[in-house]
Amino acid sequence: MDNSLQERVLERTRVFSGRMIQLETWRVRLPDGREAGREVVLHPGAVAILAEPEPGVVLCVEQYRTATGETLLEIPAGKLEPGEAPAACAMRELAEETGYTAETLTQIASFFTSPGFADEQVHLFYATELTRGDAHPDADEFVRLRPVTKDEASAWVAEGRLRDAKTLVAFLWWLGQPGAAKR
Amino acid sequence: MDNSLQERVLERTRVFSGRMIQLETWRVRLPDGREAGREVVLHPGAVAILAEPEPGVVLCVEQYRTATGETLLEIPAGKLEPGEAPAACAMRELAEETGYTAETLTQIASFFTSPGFADEQVHLFYATELTRGDAHPDADEFVRLRPVTKDEASAWVAEGRLRDAKTLVAFLWWLGQPGAAKR
Repeated sequence: MDNSLQERVLERTRVFSGRMIQLETWRVRLPDGREAGREVVLHPGAVAILAEPEPGVVLCVEQYRTATGETLLEIPAGKLEPGEAPAACAMRELAEETGYTAETLTQIASFFTSPGFADEQVHLFYATELTRGDAHPDADEFVRLRPVTKDEASAWVAEGRLRDAKTLVAFLWWLGQPGAAKR
Repeated sequence: MDNSLQERVLERTRVFSGRMIQLETWRVRLPDGREAGREVVLHPGAVAILAEPEPGVVLCVEQYRTATGETLLEIPAGKLEPGEAPAACAMRELAEETGYTAETLTQIASFFTSPGFADEQVHLFYATELTRGDAHPDADEFVRLRPVTKDEASAWVAEGRLRDAKTLVAFLWWLGQPGAAKR
């Protein structure tokens, strides 16, 4: 990639420190020498898990998302604890939200969700060889388990009903794998 | 979707009003009757455009993203102006960042990028029948045009080098369309 596009951070000012995010305003030096301001949300990062308990079925959850005002269909996900490795976090979040544990975990991608204003990265994993147990979500987290077939996933994508970015990435990846249902 | 998961907003407090985002803290009533706090980033929404000037090639830009500390390969994108329709914004941003204008624009998806803490939606369009002109990016926006072939897109996805969520969605969708290169 082209490093000549890079900006240099001159000053960071903390505006807000919350339970999930921090907000800072940054002064930066642009590539042409001028200065500009940036608004930056700091987030610990998150994992998301595409878990396939049997061929052609993945585990999703329905979850009301306050910021969006909508109940979304999503793959299981959650934010990293301080110092937690993404794979360990994926195992923990999968168990918390669905009750399932996975023998095999493969990383599909790591991506920035909103690079224009946030440093949040989602580490996306594919989990197979699953064993069922009991879900135990966080006290203020209300999620409903919802298995989704490949045909359903394909329809949700085609009809524009899938509203969550990480779940779109995961479904599109899954539908593109060998043995996929027709798109 | 299941409406019983819904939260009710009791109080909103504005913490920060910036050029691109606002930050609020919300008190909400959980489905079980208890109260909880939420941190919510308000964003005007954005568009992203998968533009294919010739079959098998799409227009990308390299752009340094301050919040991420990385130069990212992305499809052209930009935020909505007040009252601007997503399709009009897509036409404008495509012209600004690449110089191209499109005869045909089809919506692929609208999705939330970070539903855990932000209301940002990205409206993703597929643009074809393109005519070349001159790019004219914003004064504090430094982008470099970078056409990408289907084989390159496939390699970037497979090698985990694609770091931007909306571009991952767009590439995976494109690679799944009829006539796609082998994955």
